[in-house]
Amino acid sequence: MRCEVVAVGTELLLGQIVDTNSSWIGEQLALAGIDSHFQTKVGDNLDRIVSAFRIALDRSDAVIVCGGLGPTQDDITRDALAHVMGVELVPDDRVLERIETMFAARGRVMAANNALQALVPVGATVIEQRRGTAPGLICPVGDKVVYAVPGVPHEMKEMLERAVIPDLQTRSGERAVIKSRVLRTWGEAESTLAERVAPRLQALEAAGNPTLAFLASGIEGIKIRITAKAATEDEAQALIEAEDAELRAILGTLVFGVDADTMERAAGYLLEERGWSLGVAESMTGGLVAARIVDVPGSSGWFRGGVVSYDSRVKYDVLGVPEGCPVISAECATAMAEGVRRVVGSDVGLAVTGVAGPAEQEGQPVGTVWFGLALPDRPTEAVHVRLPGPRDQVRQFATISLMDLLRRRLLTGE
Amino acid sequence: MRCEVVAVGTELLLGQIVDTNSSWIGEQLALAGIDSHFQTKVGDNLDRIVSAFRIALDRSDAVIVCGGLGPTQDDITRDALAHVMGVELVPDDRVLERIETMFAARGRVMAANNALQALVPVGATVIEQRRGTAPGLICPVGDKVVYAVPGVPHEMKEMLERAVIPDLQTRSGERAVIKSRVLRTWGEAESTLAERVAPRLQALEAAGNPTLAFLASGIEGIKIRITAKAATEDEAQALIEAEDAELRAILGTLVFGVDADTMERAAGYLLEERGWSLGVAESMTGGLVAARIVDVPGSSGWFRGGVVSYDSRVKYDVLGVPEGCPVISAECATAMAEGVRRVVGSDVGLAVTGVAGPAEQEGQPVGTVWFGLALPDRPTEAVHVRLPGPRDQVRQFATISLMDLLRRRLLTGE
Repeated sequence: MRCEVVAVGTELLLGQIVDTNSSWIGEQLALAGIDSHFQTKVGDNLDRIVSAFRIALDRSDAVIVCGGLGPTQDDITRDALAHVMGVELVPDDRVLERIETMFAARGRVMAANNALQALVPVGATVIEQRRGTAPGLICPVGDKVVYAVPGVPHEMKEMLERAVIPDLQTRSGERAVIKSRVLRTWGEAESTLAERVAPRLQALEAAGNPTLAFLASGIEGIKIRITAKAATEDEAQALIEAEDAELRAILGTLVFGVDADTMERAAGYLLEERGWSLGVAESMTGGLVAARIVDVPGSSGWFRGGVVSYDSRVKYDVLGVPEGCPVISAECATAMAEGVRRVVGSDVGLAVTGVAGPAEQEGQPVGTVWFGLALPDRPTEAVHVRLPGPRDQVRQFATISLMDLLRRRLLTGE
Repeated sequence: MRCEVVAVGTELLLGQIVDTNSSWIGEQLALAGIDSHFQTKVGDNLDRIVSAFRIALDRSDAVIVCGGLGPTQDDITRDALAHVMGVELVPDDRVLERIETMFAARGRVMAANNALQALVPVGATVIEQRRGTAPGLICPVGDKVVYAVPGVPHEMKEMLERAVIPDLQTRSGERAVIKSRVLRTWGEAESTLAERVAPRLQALEAAGNPTLAFLASGIEGIKIRITAKAATEDEAQALIEAEDAELRAILGTLVFGVDADTMERAAGYLLEERGWSLGVAESMTGGLVAARIVDVPGSSGWFRGGVVSYDSRVKYDVLGVPEGCPVISAECATAMAEGVRRVVGSDVGLAVTGVAGPAEQEGQPVGTVWFGLALPDRPTEAVHVRLPGPRDQVRQFATISLMDLLRRRLLTGE
């Protein structure tokens, strides 16, 4: 089964919006074991959208088109679909009613334009809209298919997971119930991880169910997807749970979460469990750690705040680092961690200091990083790492590595 | 002249890397007045890259291919180009010498693999590599052309600006020298900006030189590109300078910089001029303002650091906000600005507090934001804004709006 992605929108070609939707869809297809060889971006032009669909259908079995389902004149994905299917667009009463209900629920009257969103190509199946006004569409074209989903990311993602991926799996000849879970890992290279999991992969090979897939995702770590098939939902779920346990037995604390969990959220759960609050002192990351933490829903329950001590004087004067102490050092990192704990009044203090680049500092090369970790139940410690890459990457890796360090200490003390 | 973009790399299809290169190239093409109707992503597979080139060349006059020029076995853009041109790849001694020199300058020996990067299709012109080891290529295919540039963003950008865009402009039949400059603006909608510039646009219409183009770029503001043609470089430059002055006379402080200037850098220049240092107190942005500031080269000269006062107690205890003061208020914002100035020992204190969402706070709706601004030469003030959109967007807009506020005050006191 081959499926490619077409993203519609002139703003994508002009670079006004970066097309993150296609990347996300590409990842979901890979994790679901569906080949995807091309992704195309095309502007809001009927002939060119139709041409993009034809080229894609010519070389793939299925196409996911994203965007152009809104209520404005620019939104012509529906027209292009009807054109490629060789059918008319007709109003769908249930879709219209649903749009009217959504507007009413928000205390607003539906604009006339929104009725356009209730037009459906004859022969297409509607994917019910749950988060926005645009329904999705499943459009057969000969023995192939085009799925249309909205360009609004959270609407698109919900529809893709609920309707598109399962339909693709059914079409690929699969009649069983398919369930999957992604284990999120951090701290080992893909090759090392694969080596550790190799015996398990071998054991699974004969039955072919569940299956495992690896996906390296940069600063998001390496993802391992477990996919299980069974006659019933419960049986598939049981297979997933069993395999999850097998893999965790092998990988231990390398696994920091599942599916959409982030490292910050994983660490946050553990802090919440203990009822501990957190403060962070940042030098080289300049606020990135704090900014990622406040993105975690509910982090206001355990995150008190932090100090960005970019200038050395702030380290000495605010955080209480001993005057003249080298700033790229274990001593500085531990003093920063204890200092921020005192300043913001938190139970736990985290600190990061190091050389992000472009130039070396205090004779230390770019990528030299010291983390400080002050916990209520053990002595404050400093941890040294060397991180690769340019300035921005060093900062990003330092941010996630620091949160991972906290998570591991809270989990096991290791 | 139509030019489309092909991005090469299996990691792009798998969603391991978001393809920001194509977006950036799309923007440059739009700003240069070159039509671009499609962008394609394709994996590291010879047949499929060749097929993507053929489809693109069939419907456009030029193609920019990005990526696949590295030294590994996966890097097969060169092979695909030779295939489409119907020629052989031959080693280019000057390119090889240049790669060897680069390695030697870094004190390393060139790996044998890197010699692959010196292979050039017969009939192609080399674009000298200045930042990396992969040269760019200008490959004629019939009366059309494919430009190959590396996938590493800063290498790609340098080559595109230096060689590809000028070559495209020459091919589009233009024999004059073309120069351009982008004015970066913040604070007005595109429609308002266009209205203010309308008389100027009308005045330019008859001569058609220089020309102006508008491009809305989200949190980067609205860009206005001035493009001038003349017989000589100096004459083109003079036209640009004159038009820059005309537009600034109309737009005043809405213009915060040119070309790749960021708002943080613009504000940083003004602080440097005065010899003033900066501290920031952040609540709802949680460190984003500081993180953007430390991305400015040289910001360590004027940025001392900041306090992330996510929890109200940090506002009271660390920043000296009066106990019990509502945190979404003018009083809180000014106290935070003065507090952080005192805590980090800076000349200037900036503060932001507000409701990022998802829920309202202290009875204030999502998007309510108070900025605080403490400068050495005037009374501390608070500024109220209402920002649109979801949580992440409110934070991003708050960050750039705060820096813009500082910039305007430093410029004019307005």
